[in-house]
Amino acid sequence: MTVEFTGERFGGWYRLSGDEQTAREKAEDICVEQTVEFPRELVGGNSIHDHIIGRVESFEMLDAIHFLAYITFAIETVGTELTQLINVLFGNTSLKPGIRVERIELPERLARAFQGPRFGRDGLRAALSVPKRPLLCTALKPMGLSARELADLAYQFALGGIDIIKDDHGLADQTFAPFRERVQCCAEAVERANRETGYKCIYMPNITARYDDIVARAEFARQAGAGGLLIAPGLSGFDAMRSLADNDRIGLPIMSHPAFQGGLVTSADNGFSHSALFGQLPRLAGADASIFPNCGGRFSFSCEECVSIAQGSAAAMGHIKPIFPTPGGGMSLERVPEMLEIYGRDVIFLIGGGLHQHESDLATACKYLHELVEAM
Amino acid sequence: MTVEFTGERFGGWYRLSGDEQTAREKAEDICVEQTVEFPRELVGGNSIHDHIIGRVESFEMLDAIHFLAYITFAIETVGTELTQLINVLFGNTSLKPGIRVERIELPERLARAFQGPRFGRDGLRAALSVPKRPLLCTALKPMGLSARELADLAYQFALGGIDIIKDDHGLADQTFAPFRERVQCCAEAVERANRETGYKCIYMPNITARYDDIVARAEFARQAGAGGLLIAPGLSGFDAMRSLADNDRIGLPIMSHPAFQGGLVTSADNGFSHSALFGQLPRLAGADASIFPNCGGRFSFSCEECVSIAQGSAAAMGHIKPIFPTPGGGMSLERVPEMLEIYGRDVIFLIGGGLHQHESDLATACKYLHELVEAM
Repeated sequence: MTVEFTGERFGGWYRLSGDEQTAREKAEDICVEQTVEFPRELVGGNSIHDHIIGRVESFEMLDAIHFLAYITFAIETVGTELTQLINVLFGNTSLKPGIRVERIELPERLARAFQGPRFGRDGLRAALSVPKRPLLCTALKPMGLSARELADLAYQFALGGIDIIKDDHGLADQTFAPFRERVQCCAEAVERANRETGYKCIYMPNITARYDDIVARAEFARQAGAGGLLIAPGLSGFDAMRSLADNDRIGLPIMSHPAFQGGLVTSADNGFSHSALFGQLPRLAGADASIFPNCGGRFSFSCEECVSIAQGSAAAMGHIKPIFPTPGGGMSLERVPEMLEIYGRDVIFLIGGGLHQHESDLATACKYLHELVEAM
Repeated sequence: MTVEFTGERFGGWYRLSGDEQTAREKAEDICVEQTVEFPRELVGGNSIHDHIIGRVESFEMLDAIHFLAYITFAIETVGTELTQLINVLFGNTSLKPGIRVERIELPERLARAFQGPRFGRDGLRAALSVPKRPLLCTALKPMGLSARELADLAYQFALGGIDIIKDDHGLADQTFAPFRERVQCCAEAVERANRETGYKCIYMPNITARYDDIVARAEFARQAGAGGLLIAPGLSGFDAMRSLADNDRIGLPIMSHPAFQGGLVTSADNGFSHSALFGQLPRLAGADASIFPNCGGRFSFSCEECVSIAQGSAAAMGHIKPIFPTPGGGMSLERVPEMLEIYGRDVIFLIGGGLHQHESDLATACKYLHELVEAM
């Protein structure tokens, strides 16, 4: 075998549960399980032993039963595929309890395999002509409304100054609001409102769909005038999102939805850190904004965890652009000042039911929100 | 809105953690969160309220802090997409702690939206000409070997009477064994061995890959003579697997690999039951065999959990065929009798390192295993 190894390595910070000996064994196990998956003694002393098997670069105690190991792998174990990057980081190890990926570190040579977000924070702000304030987003719902009824809602929202109107992630291709009819109606409604307001509100339909229909739906959405796309990588796979972001024919901003990803964060000792799952991974996979459950809403994420997601969405990652943290889920207008304090201005506020619960009509509620945020 | 609801519903059995009141609240919350995602009081008394919001059909105590609720949803909330079926069952609810999907129930009208496994148990047995005994499977590894070296291994395995030789799931498209070269070499090596033995061993390359390259790799594999495909739906998305299974141009048996799915089973109170995740879901998504970590190996699944997977892979599910449970991970030849007792004969034994650790050469170790299983 004459493959050259560059010597460049990528790595993961793994939080390991157990006493020190257990944690050290887990670290050594990750090195083997994530690469050769083969008894170490049978590998022998060769380039596989020297280059392929992972390496524990550091190991430190966090508390009596938690340790942090930094483990690196040759970038050649990945090649250039996102699926394989995730596989080497956490494929089989995800099946072993008491191991959590805290952070991913990529050398520039491997990061260059991924284009990342097409727009990122600056690009999305430019597209919407909103240079500074937090962006405002809402969802078309409830499931069961017709395409026409959803479009009426979209029109009200756009008229009121919402920047991004997305499908609720539960809108797929159901008989009550078929995908193509819905997208046509809603994109048209938002465009009509924009002509009246002068705003650049965009509609983001949900294109989480059959594997073989995702690209067709994205292309249809673009042609119908949608200004962005919503997709749930937990359902579609992360690489479906990456492929849409890289697709020059589509070329739209992408919002990532967390549906079906909960298994990776509901247990504190397993899975991924919030920051890696909702910050780093969607960035690598080309999302321009990443939705996650806001603290204090109807989900159970802590404010600390939410802040860590915002950090992960902007922390240095080579040429990969920073993206918008998009907290949502049970948000109310009253919480806007508090949320500004938590997230700063580089955030998308996703407010759904809260707008409907406001005392006035929908467009007025949106105007109120818009002015509230403009004034801050 | 003039959509007709058939009145047919599908459902999930949800295990809820907490005291009775908490559990009852969780059950009611699932009804709303998985459908309208909207304050119930704002929905009003209409067809959305009557048909779309989920319904708690039964609620029982398991123990003082665990309850079991059966919750149903109109099949119209799904349409015909697997992504949306999973989304309605557990999309947002996956992000809420203390809720686990134990079992999925589909009425025949919804099940018919899914073709399920193309081969199933009977079809795979027929393809391999192995009518009764457990099937034997091994993996090409370690990562880092060249295509030629992997093909040499494949030849030895096939000569020894292994039925299915799969790529290790860590083999992607790396420089040391590029996908197309590897598939060509290994398929050819297995065919050569078959000509010598008269067996019908098949090679299953790993086609977990870029979203936009999965189908091309599957077609290449078929043309190169591969007899099946390995894919990890945790990385590719379940529907990528479904789409391969349904593809008449490909038409090969499919083996599902559990990489990156661990988050859904590492915590007993969250995610999916082992039986639903490694039995029901891969069946719905067209796998003919589902790999999972065997009890007593280097993973932590209990024998009870593994048996439940075998049950889920065959339990009645309309026209969806039963598939092969495929326990692997740290298996040795010595454990074959014990495993036969656990799983019965409708099983695929996946033995990797164990064959290399046997005292004799590889082909002889395989022959020993083959005879052992034939004799039982």
